[in-house]
Amino acid sequence: MKIALAQLNYTIGDFAGNTAKIIKAIEQARDNDAGLIVFSELAVCGYPPDDLLDYPHFIQHCKDALDEIAKATTGITAVVGCPVVNTHAKGRRLYNAACILSNGELVDSIFKTLLPTYDVFSEARYFQSNENFRTVNINGINTAITICEDLWDEMDFFSYTQDPLKNLSAFNPQLILNISASPFNADKEKTRYEILRNQAVNFKLPLVYVNQVGAHTDLIFDGNSLFINANGSIAKQLKSFEEELAYVDFNDKQKNLYLKKRNALNKLHKALVFGLRDYFSKMGFTKAVLGSSGGIDSAVVQALLSEAIGGENVTAILMPSQFSSEGSVNDAIMLSQNLNNPHYILPIKNIFECFDAALEPLFKDSPFNVAEENIQARSRAVLLMAYSNKFGAILVNTSNKSEMSVGYTTLYGDMCGSISVIGDVYKTDVFALADRINIKEILIPTTILRKAPSAELRPDQKDSDSLPPYEILDAILKAYIEEQLSVNEIVASGFERETVERSIKMVNNNEYKRFQAPPILRVSSKAYGRGRVIPLVAKFKN
Amino acid sequence: MKIALAQLNYTIGDFAGNTAKIIKAIEQARDNDAGLIVFSELAVCGYPPDDLLDYPHFIQHCKDALDEIAKATTGITAVVGCPVVNTHAKGRRLYNAACILSNGELVDSIFKTLLPTYDVFSEARYFQSNENFRTVNINGINTAITICEDLWDEMDFFSYTQDPLKNLSAFNPQLILNISASPFNADKEKTRYEILRNQAVNFKLPLVYVNQVGAHTDLIFDGNSLFINANGSIAKQLKSFEEELAYVDFNDKQKNLYLKKRNALNKLHKALVFGLRDYFSKMGFTKAVLGSSGGIDSAVVQALLSEAIGGENVTAILMPSQFSSEGSVNDAIMLSQNLNNPHYILPIKNIFECFDAALEPLFKDSPFNVAEENIQARSRAVLLMAYSNKFGAILVNTSNKSEMSVGYTTLYGDMCGSISVIGDVYKTDVFALADRINIKEILIPTTILRKAPSAELRPDQKDSDSLPPYEILDAILKAYIEEQLSVNEIVASGFERETVERSIKMVNNNEYKRFQAPPILRVSSKAYGRGRVIPLVAKFKN
Repeated sequence: MKIALAQLNYTIGDFAGNTAKIIKAIEQARDNDAGLIVFSELAVCGYPPDDLLDYPHFIQHCKDALDEIAKATTGITAVVGCPVVNTHAKGRRLYNAACILSNGELVDSIFKTLLPTYDVFSEARYFQSNENFRTVNINGINTAITICEDLWDEMDFFSYTQDPLKNLSAFNPQLILNISASPFNADKEKTRYEILRNQAVNFKLPLVYVNQVGAHTDLIFDGNSLFINANGSIAKQLKSFEEELAYVDFNDKQKNLYLKKRNALNKLHKALVFGLRDYFSKMGFTKAVLGSSGGIDSAVVQALLSEAIGGENVTAILMPSQFSSEGSVNDAIMLSQNLNNPHYILPIKNIFECFDAALEPLFKDSPFNVAEENIQARSRAVLLMAYSNKFGAILVNTSNKSEMSVGYTTLYGDMCGSISVIGDVYKTDVFALADRINIKEILIPTTILRKAPSAELRPDQKDSDSLPPYEILDAILKAYIEEQLSVNEIVASGFERETVERSIKMVNNNEYKRFQAPPILRVSSKAYGRGRVIPLVAKFKN
Repeated sequence: MKIALAQLNYTIGDFAGNTAKIIKAIEQARDNDAGLIVFSELAVCGYPPDDLLDYPHFIQHCKDALDEIAKATTGITAVVGCPVVNTHAKGRRLYNAACILSNGELVDSIFKTLLPTYDVFSEARYFQSNENFRTVNINGINTAITICEDLWDEMDFFSYTQDPLKNLSAFNPQLILNISASPFNADKEKTRYEILRNQAVNFKLPLVYVNQVGAHTDLIFDGNSLFINANGSIAKQLKSFEEELAYVDFNDKQKNLYLKKRNALNKLHKALVFGLRDYFSKMGFTKAVLGSSGGIDSAVVQALLSEAIGGENVTAILMPSQFSSEGSVNDAIMLSQNLNNPHYILPIKNIFECFDAALEPLFKDSPFNVAEENIQARSRAVLLMAYSNKFGAILVNTSNKSEMSVGYTTLYGDMCGSISVIGDVYKTDVFALADRINIKEILIPTTILRKAPSAELRPDQKDSDSLPPYEILDAILKAYIEEQLSVNEIVASGFERETVERSIKMVNNNEYKRFQAPPILRVSSKAYGRGRVIPLVAKFKN
């Protein structure tokens, strides 16, 4: 039997679009003599649908779409992810299901057992867990259908006594399917393959793994679907960040391939460009605007954005103050020219003075401090949002993860934007990314790469005046955010206690700013946003 | 046996403070000859601790605190909520436990079975579910200890086959304890009592219910702990929004009381004031600032805030533009005088003209539209945040739930603030609340109550120009947000289709604004914020 792996890009809640895309793939697969076509988890409504699942009419749309898809399955079997209603008296209202459609009908459904509820996942919020695992006969092949986490049984992520794999062998399956919605992060491709390979080897069975591709605001799904041989080698690996309809034959002898080695920076670069492009595409946006400071963060975002939606669609606004160096303005102009971005210079000196005059009755002769620094950052935000409102260009945020962590950002100032591009990329990685962007031609002027990081909000300001060097700060932040180590553990790994305590205190004291941050493209195992929920009360110190 | 009900106000992660408070209550209870003292759910660390539970050192702090509390239990038994480590090889790392401390030791722990994972709750994200329910002998009384949701078995909120109540009778308990962390909303007191009463009657057992009191940014816990007789009547009801240590005697014949009837507006008023006061107190803030427009929303917030932290600590900034009516300014001045608030007038005309001039090269002679409207709202935010930064006063948001719903607000403008006070109160309820606030003396000038709602961002603007009348809009919003009805269902309940479709389209198109909103004091069954997670992609239309 020929099996089609449909690695497609769905839009959450776009039933007409998703259904048309699924039916088209079914027709192509049948034309190519496939007996089975496999789609990803919750393909019908898109993943993650979040609380749209609470709306009964949303679930009705899922059912209607599934009925329509079923009609297209004459002469072929399709396994399609879709939420279905739990008809039992007790428990949650829905199952996360793999629906088996064949010859015009819904012939069976297999429900997900292990419902991930950690980091960015909240499936226990919506779904009832399956309690009785079983296999399904698909065109004469006894098939074990699993849904994403069901195969990740080595993780301690679940609250259930059920384990779909415990009795799997007793059913004597010939094939394992796994329909998935597994988001990208730097190491995910390898982790994912190792888990799937171990299961294939463990059960001595070939394994079809179909992931979705596509970005849903913060979450980026990379695809990378696989057909794994019973010996754990790879027979087929689908593309990253692209739709693909691929075929394997269950009966033929397969090639023994290895996981493609991909450069980490290259993957990060691709993920960010893909995430941005899909965000603009799915939201129906075509034009972007950003503040271009002449610094490395905005330069990298400007380059990524230009690659994602076209340089001519990205407007750069340069808003120098009296503290901006001439070099910064010239660098920003050169960058815009390199990227073919329309750019405008709107100095903020007069605006700042206007605010200063308005506040004079209150501020009198109080010394220049963070209040005045922030007026500059917020005046820029007002200008950028005015441009956005007037011309329909979407403001894109340029803050990096290091400054988001320690609060080295102005709320309602440089923290503004519809989406944050590098809010999950530490400063040291932003530098590396800049080099990567410049690999074929120098798009980001080297003067930008070489200058000492500065917010330029007061005379001769440097980030290093108030922050530890970024190599040290980023290492401490990774230990605290990604690895969830304590102050003592981080100190024990070789950092100065004072630096660790100061850095972590800054992280904890700035939860309130991140609470109001834009959605952030997630590229690490622990991004700010839905995957990290910390109380705003700052009493807990480490 | 005399039982002490300890309804206390904990701070999340404040182990020293919570431990001291718990030990003090234990000592008082012992001095009053109580044999048992009952604290609320996760009292040791505060509820909800969210992802702080992921940090192993946070859990170590919990254990250390529990050890310290145990030492204080000479001659008395204490039931204290605390996360404890799951020592089994599989499953989640923690249990949500009721720890039984007696004579200096941790003698037993009972784990929570039903882990709420809906709306604002995410317990399946952290905890392993208990699988074997049992009772505990406390000073000779066979006691069934349950934790919050464990008693709510009529709800379909859980994914588990376990049910702590299924075999409860087989253990022949003499008493049911329920330690809880149940947040306030308008109908919650009654719902909660009815569920507890039904369980008491069902099992023919007296029931001790201990809830926490206290606000944790968005979530407000009202207390209202209860001792319910086996016949379902109330023997003791503790206070709302106040700490209380109360006593009941298990052996004595109890009074038969009814649930105290409390006026809904009065409860709403008290909840908001309490929520604000506890927010300021726990964050260590003493001073607030807000924009005072002369409209009803800012007037109500200004009055609530003055009640919460003292009028002298609330600075009102009036920022009229050329579109502000003279009446608005005079009304705002009178309001500040009534509330004893320091107030300043900072006209924004010059600032607006500065922005206008700066943008002239780009905007040229494009007509005045939403871009210019928003410049005004955002200029005000810059001034308010400058005041906040300079003087350490916390900016409080004044948007109501109706305008938050339809996006009749300016992101980074009037949506700014550390906390939203009435973001879960519809406009029609804001009017009712204003009347309630004026019940003893006219604090909010009647001219503010009588004027037609307007954002005053262009000449002669009225909310009714672009929105349905608030009585209709609010009813549609409640049906959509709280009751999760579809367009068709709302139309069928008696509203014009065009109005319903337009209103709901506005709700759906403004998810992106609410994503960046401040935390909102939650007073309804469905507030914007952590309890409502909707994808930003706006393809799903109803």
